[in-house]
Amino acid sequence: MKIDGRHYRTIWLKETDPRVVQIIDQNVLPHRFEIRDIATVAEMVVAIREMQVRGAGLIGAAAGYGMYLAALEAGREHDFDSAVFHAGDLLKATRPTAVNLAWAVGRQLGAMGSEITVERKIAAALRTALEIADEDADYCRRIGMHGLRILRRLAKKKNGAPLNILTHCNAGWLAFVDYGSATAPVYAAHDSGIPVHVWVDETRPRNQGAKLTAWELGRHGVPHTVIADNAGGHLMQHGLVDLVIVGTDRTTRTGDVANKIGTYLKALAARDNRVPFYVALPSSSFDWSMRDGLKEIPIEERSAREVKYADGWHAGEHLEIRVTPENSPAANFGFDVTPRHLVTGLITERGVCKANEQAICRLFPEYSTIGNG
Amino acid sequence: MKIDGRHYRTIWLKETDPRVVQIIDQNVLPHRFEIRDIATVAEMVVAIREMQVRGAGLIGAAAGYGMYLAALEAGREHDFDSAVFHAGDLLKATRPTAVNLAWAVGRQLGAMGSEITVERKIAAALRTALEIADEDADYCRRIGMHGLRILRRLAKKKNGAPLNILTHCNAGWLAFVDYGSATAPVYAAHDSGIPVHVWVDETRPRNQGAKLTAWELGRHGVPHTVIADNAGGHLMQHGLVDLVIVGTDRTTRTGDVANKIGTYLKALAARDNRVPFYVALPSSSFDWSMRDGLKEIPIEERSAREVKYADGWHAGEHLEIRVTPENSPAANFGFDVTPRHLVTGLITERGVCKANEQAICRLFPEYSTIGNG
Repeated sequence: MKIDGRHYRTIWLKETDPRVVQIIDQNVLPHRFEIRDIATVAEMVVAIREMQVRGAGLIGAAAGYGMYLAALEAGREHDFDSAVFHAGDLLKATRPTAVNLAWAVGRQLGAMGSEITVERKIAAALRTALEIADEDADYCRRIGMHGLRILRRLAKKKNGAPLNILTHCNAGWLAFVDYGSATAPVYAAHDSGIPVHVWVDETRPRNQGAKLTAWELGRHGVPHTVIADNAGGHLMQHGLVDLVIVGTDRTTRTGDVANKIGTYLKALAARDNRVPFYVALPSSSFDWSMRDGLKEIPIEERSAREVKYADGWHAGEHLEIRVTPENSPAANFGFDVTPRHLVTGLITERGVCKANEQAICRLFPEYSTIGNG
Repeated sequence: MKIDGRHYRTIWLKETDPRVVQIIDQNVLPHRFEIRDIATVAEMVVAIREMQVRGAGLIGAAAGYGMYLAALEAGREHDFDSAVFHAGDLLKATRPTAVNLAWAVGRQLGAMGSEITVERKIAAALRTALEIADEDADYCRRIGMHGLRILRRLAKKKNGAPLNILTHCNAGWLAFVDYGSATAPVYAAHDSGIPVHVWVDETRPRNQGAKLTAWELGRHGVPHTVIADNAGGHLMQHGLVDLVIVGTDRTTRTGDVANKIGTYLKALAARDNRVPFYVALPSSSFDWSMRDGLKEIPIEERSAREVKYADGWHAGEHLEIRVTPENSPAANFGFDVTPRHLVTGLITERGVCKANEQAICRLFPEYSTIGNG
């Protein structure tokens, strides 16, 4: 998408040195726009773990590029294969909930494994990293196209008033390589002249909504309003939300949706107020091996510090303040699971389907026999 | 309750000058403990509006004391009655959602109205201010007693493991004159040796949970953990919450509960996971004139700044940081309404009842004929 008129992706090869990857550091947005060089797999591991890059699609792409960096490094080692396997393990261990990490690492290992010489393995890793990134952007673009039909239909009932969409966290272009998942239909609608307005959950504790979603919508000119995570139920009770669209870090083959902590609460409110609740995802976010999201999806626990502190901008400085008493403990669960029966539909690159195994496998028949039994 | 071994209420007459009221400034907790003098009704209006004093019971008591200050000032005016009426209007206008304000002002006007001389009116205002405060503390103590029976029953199923209670915002002793409403049963259980642990919702945007509830529980030695408002649903899905207790700013005679924004979301999650959801309130928080909470209870909208900024402690200083992009708008609804069918029970000073008109009026028969028709 565009920032000040110039097109950006969230991750790319450095123009002057294709052995270096560049990213937008999302930890300092919206206060500063900074591009960072990532020259080693160790640096990529830190960038993912510290959430300089974050979001399901983007960390998949980052793992893809990370495996390319790993291949460059492994080319200087005695045992290429064990070096890239080890790098893959390091990348997968950075964030437990998002399935895209393991998916991208697996795809890279497969691509490299089918080549014989080190040069060809490195070339395959580069080609696959670029493929993963391009595919992510292309899939998000298609999600936008399919979601647009839903928004267009709902907008017709509004008689020209803006369609109010609520989203949680950032499943925007910053969370992918381009377009975003939850935001792709919003950008598509806005660009095609449908009046839209987005309620942006601030998304504590890391405030990805207040910082990233508000920033990217603002830069693209999409009307939006930041709200506390507590507000969505009240807005729905009063008819101020026409639909909810969120992303997902892992969705089971049966349609259970792991997404940023708090998503489940919004899904409950949507059901209670008959507001459609959609989840937008590229197929890389499906976990075809799981059937019971609540029991099976691992939920990342992050540092208590993220709850006790908030970070932001003060007098020209980016700093952290402590909100709680110094000695009060805090807990920080990163994700929750929204059971499939609360989901109106899944918006994928192949179209929209119900959140159940049969409907999902009808869209993705190549996975229909995996995980049975 | 006690702070560092010394007993405090949240509001009292200054020992050395009974024409001055003293309060704990809740805007600087937990970072500083500061007592402020309130010498005029205008200062009390500011203290309530700026939330130096907040919470249903406490702002009722503050309005009571405020009317006493108004009477002292009116004694120097030409027209005593119109001066105190005007002061009452100013006090009622500070916060629209909490019913305790209007209730306290009305009680004061009634008490003063039944006296003839200015001296006796002032004496009545003083007596009534003290009565309101004492009654609030006494009612909260009784709420603790009645709630304790519920906690004791639930604790029996835990085989000695701590009873996990989730609360939202601060309905603690800081929100009342003493004990609190939602916290009163918790303190009573803790003091009687029942092991309890409280999940404290941080309660954005003003963080009354992270700041005030965590602080008062910590000072009293009650085990607790601060969580993002987003986390409660996940905890309930995983059996980590045994019951929810919250307060209320206004509850209709039919049992619809207005409370801090986000309460409704927790009530939905409690129902979805069969977790008991209790609301603790003194009778001063009932609005006997209302039947439909969603349609009738006015919801305060506060400054967008509270959403865009967070305040806390940094390098020995209390300061505010901006979290959102500078130009992103924000909306700030202060309360939501939890429909009565999501409420397991109301814990009042007279006992526990179901959240419906018949049950409520059985406990409070003196109001059973008001508001009918």
